[in-house]
Amino acid sequence: MRVSKLFGRTSKTEGTDYRVPSHRLLVQAGYIRESTAGRYYLLPLGLKVHEKITQVVRKHMDTAGAQEVVMPVLHPLELWQETNRTTTTGFELMKIRDRREAEFALGGTAEEMAVDLVRKFNISYKDLPFNIYQFSMKFRDEMRARGGLLRVREFVMKDAYSFGTEQQFKGTYQQMWDAYAAIFTELGLKTDVVAADNGYIGGEYCHEFISESDQGESRYFVDESTGYAAHEDVAKFKIANMNVDEEPRDLQEVEAVRGTTMEDGVRLHNLPLWQQTKDVLFFDEATKRYILALIRGDFDVNETKLMQAAGAWELRAATEQEIREDLGSEPGFISPVSFVKKGAKTGYEVVIVADTSMRSVRNMYGGNNRKHADLLNINIDRDWTPDIEADIALAKAGVLGPDGNQLVEKKGIEVGNIFQLGYHYSTLMHDAEYTDKAGKRQKYYMGCYGIGIGRTLAAIVEAHHDDKGIIWPDNLAPYRVYLVQIGEEESVKNITNTLYENLTAAGVDVLYDDRATRPGEKFADADLLGIPHRVVVSAKTVEQGSFEYKKRTEVGSTMHTLESLKNILTAAV
Amino acid sequence: MRVSKLFGRTSKTEGTDYRVPSHRLLVQAGYIRESTAGRYYLLPLGLKVHEKITQVVRKHMDTAGAQEVVMPVLHPLELWQETNRTTTTGFELMKIRDRREAEFALGGTAEEMAVDLVRKFNISYKDLPFNIYQFSMKFRDEMRARGGLLRVREFVMKDAYSFGTEQQFKGTYQQMWDAYAAIFTELGLKTDVVAADNGYIGGEYCHEFISESDQGESRYFVDESTGYAAHEDVAKFKIANMNVDEEPRDLQEVEAVRGTTMEDGVRLHNLPLWQQTKDVLFFDEATKRYILALIRGDFDVNETKLMQAAGAWELRAATEQEIREDLGSEPGFISPVSFVKKGAKTGYEVVIVADTSMRSVRNMYGGNNRKHADLLNINIDRDWTPDIEADIALAKAGVLGPDGNQLVEKKGIEVGNIFQLGYHYSTLMHDAEYTDKAGKRQKYYMGCYGIGIGRTLAAIVEAHHDDKGIIWPDNLAPYRVYLVQIGEEESVKNITNTLYENLTAAGVDVLYDDRATRPGEKFADADLLGIPHRVVVSAKTVEQGSFEYKKRTEVGSTMHTLESLKNILTAAV
Repeated sequence: MRVSKLFGRTSKTEGTDYRVPSHRLLVQAGYIRESTAGRYYLLPLGLKVHEKITQVVRKHMDTAGAQEVVMPVLHPLELWQETNRTTTTGFELMKIRDRREAEFALGGTAEEMAVDLVRKFNISYKDLPFNIYQFSMKFRDEMRARGGLLRVREFVMKDAYSFGTEQQFKGTYQQMWDAYAAIFTELGLKTDVVAADNGYIGGEYCHEFISESDQGESRYFVDESTGYAAHEDVAKFKIANMNVDEEPRDLQEVEAVRGTTMEDGVRLHNLPLWQQTKDVLFFDEATKRYILALIRGDFDVNETKLMQAAGAWELRAATEQEIREDLGSEPGFISPVSFVKKGAKTGYEVVIVADTSMRSVRNMYGGNNRKHADLLNINIDRDWTPDIEADIALAKAGVLGPDGNQLVEKKGIEVGNIFQLGYHYSTLMHDAEYTDKAGKRQKYYMGCYGIGIGRTLAAIVEAHHDDKGIIWPDNLAPYRVYLVQIGEEESVKNITNTLYENLTAAGVDVLYDDRATRPGEKFADADLLGIPHRVVVSAKTVEQGSFEYKKRTEVGSTMHTLESLKNILTAAV
Repeated sequence: MRVSKLFGRTSKTEGTDYRVPSHRLLVQAGYIRESTAGRYYLLPLGLKVHEKITQVVRKHMDTAGAQEVVMPVLHPLELWQETNRTTTTGFELMKIRDRREAEFALGGTAEEMAVDLVRKFNISYKDLPFNIYQFSMKFRDEMRARGGLLRVREFVMKDAYSFGTEQQFKGTYQQMWDAYAAIFTELGLKTDVVAADNGYIGGEYCHEFISESDQGESRYFVDESTGYAAHEDVAKFKIANMNVDEEPRDLQEVEAVRGTTMEDGVRLHNLPLWQQTKDVLFFDEATKRYILALIRGDFDVNETKLMQAAGAWELRAATEQEIREDLGSEPGFISPVSFVKKGAKTGYEVVIVADTSMRSVRNMYGGNNRKHADLLNINIDRDWTPDIEADIALAKAGVLGPDGNQLVEKKGIEVGNIFQLGYHYSTLMHDAEYTDKAGKRQKYYMGCYGIGIGRTLAAIVEAHHDDKGIIWPDNLAPYRVYLVQIGEEESVKNITNTLYENLTAAGVDVLYDDRATRPGEKFADADLLGIPHRVVVSAKTVEQGSFEYKKRTEVGSTMHTLESLKNILTAAV
């Protein structure tokens, strides 16, 4: 391809204010262009890389025995109603109605569609296990798009769905784990495999493949000696006991003219932060209940763990008005001691959830449900009783992991995930069954496995770039060679042209910069685009009967004969 | 691939009542499965063929210098408003609103998106001409889906958009014409290139590539000696003069106790059908006008031509109530003579459009705007005056084409189209310009070019099947060889297995029927699936040290040594 003919060009003015490197580089190098926020055009260069990533994913999915299909983008809404997913808003579902008033969901994930397809066939134990996958456009009505291809509203996802018995599932899950490891290795992406929250998809456990990056939105914790890695939402860790040997002292009401923060409490009472109760009041819109979460003062509440513990779906912070007028308490002075169990006005129930850390401290202090009133020597069981006790603590750097080693906090980009779905969908959906050896109908056990292609592309750029631009691995570059013609002399033109044609004929993808612009601009574009190999032809090289060659990853260039150059460039084809 | 492991299986019970062969065969052979009406799953076999067709299209588009991109599926509705296409319902647009109340159209065609992308770049004459294309899911809110993949609500379309000067356009159009011809030839589809209506897309002329088929919805006319071919909507033809030498006789009012059909008129007056006026009253919802169309009795009104002649967009038949109460006429007795020019109640204007055939007859007869009252000896200009005269006649078999030869009527499946868009979009959309040599901004001249992949797949099946099933051309078959193992003897199993592995290793796609079903069922499935080459291994062939080989297109089988078999099967890889 000649640069003069290439659709989509480099830009020095676009995207200069984008904070995320992959966003800036992909726009400036002419790989992508925004349509509206979170929706992108893939330009020819961008599509080429996107396709190469797709092919790598496809190859490993096929090798793992998965079979490719395509499902409709518009999903009959009845299917999502079968699994109650139209009302659970963990997922940013878009809906549409056609002219005959039929309702559809725009596919964001396709568990229901996969089950609906499979139940059209009368499958038996002989068919199990199997795994079907597709590459298709997915839609998420994200509140906030960000970082170019990192968080978008429309993207190609590889989504796979496995069907089998519970016994078979372990093998399938491991097979997908291995396939993902092979995929990301071939894509040049180092990933951590991180235990995560199963979220809106259902099921009990899942793992995310995360590429460590400052630009990522996923916060996770790693025990580097054991390899234990878990998303902040689910990271398990040990909370050390503090003063558990202390004798319980009498509960004491005190005046407390202080502000409403934890620090105000520490300052007023001159007691450690860990001894203070942290009382956080939520309201769950899905189940219409207040949830009062209690945790030790030096930790924070993990809302994901809290939702699972309390069976909640749509948590929000309770308002000051609700705290005062419905629950008769006071913001900043909430206490589980004598907390009302029902809203005075609304009649909504209150559920008290205690983190297990509340048993690691004696004689705690905190509010007394009135302004400027605190309690000292609060002790669980004696002074108050939780409805639910569970691990609802958010991990933080330095805590000890399950194996007693310090956890390291990391940030990264989630590029893939594998989910155990278990019987979740086969229980909620009718006829999600196979015939067993005895001729009996049985529910099947499922898993699902996703990779966002565009986000993976962005993650690769995050992992492979410098100040000058992108640095594509050889196997993903849209073109392998950037051929620079310097000067408009006939001899230079002829030799460049011949080289271009020879290399192209030999199966080497060459991007030939035939523009009449200055050399500096061509070199800058070669670097910005991230093409792995650069060849220069100029009056000087022609005179010497040689070619100047440089790798994108190296600083210096070397001179080569035509023969030697060809050897280098055709080596990896 | 082993048939026992293949997802999606043949069925004898599904689709038996489908009237369209490709629909029935694709479902029964396990290539596709319906989700909801007009939305299909592509199963592994179907996707493989779909992919092969896609690759053929891509190859020829690339060869023609077009560059592949991907555009978002959700188009900002503002863009469609810029070209007034949200209100013109020639196109079955689906709309959606996101959580932030932004409105989008689900892509059905992407002229606006292509222009919006191109105008983000500051293009100049040096960039012209260029052509960008994509494969993407398209949505059409069709009132009626039909015939499996023939008319669907969701499908992958290859859509291309060319940009250039008016001078360059002719070359680009021809290039696409040639590329399409090459594509359909490689796909084994004989097509007629048929002049058609540019419809909702804008522009002045276009051509459809139509595969002749009884199952097609496109009716068109061909002059087989000159190659002239035109869609029924636009077919030009000659209407012979009838009694134009007759002297005009005096207009005469007569009582006419008759029914409301043309035949009733013929019977009552005992005069030829061609001498009767055909008066058809429409209402255009877009421009809020009545349109009275006049044509000779032996022809029908072509609504597409009428819309173009009258500048109408949303024609519907006028109701009996409108005819009587608003226009003071009578259904079945309408006459252009003294027809009111404005609705009495609504005030809506009436436009009278005469087909040119109204000048090919003298002394016509027809209604008199009252029940049971007719007029004889109606003559244009003397008794009535049209507002518009134009060719609004629908062609029919046997009429003479523009070159004076009889036109043959054909039916077929529209698999591709090429459109001249001219300045339509660049005029309606802002900044749709390039910089010319003199530095002046100029509008560019456009074309667009579509191929529906799924419909093409169905058309290929319509063209290549028999009673037993599909007959894929070698280059499109999902697998080239159907390998049948007969019997469960170890020797048979071993030899079949070895052959399967050898062929697969040699790059031949083999579908290995390893099921423990009876031979007849395996043979039937081989035929139904349409795999080009069939190989049988049984105790008998093993004993003979040979293999039974049969082509899908031939009746008899032949026996081969391993060597000879391999030569046949690897020949075309």
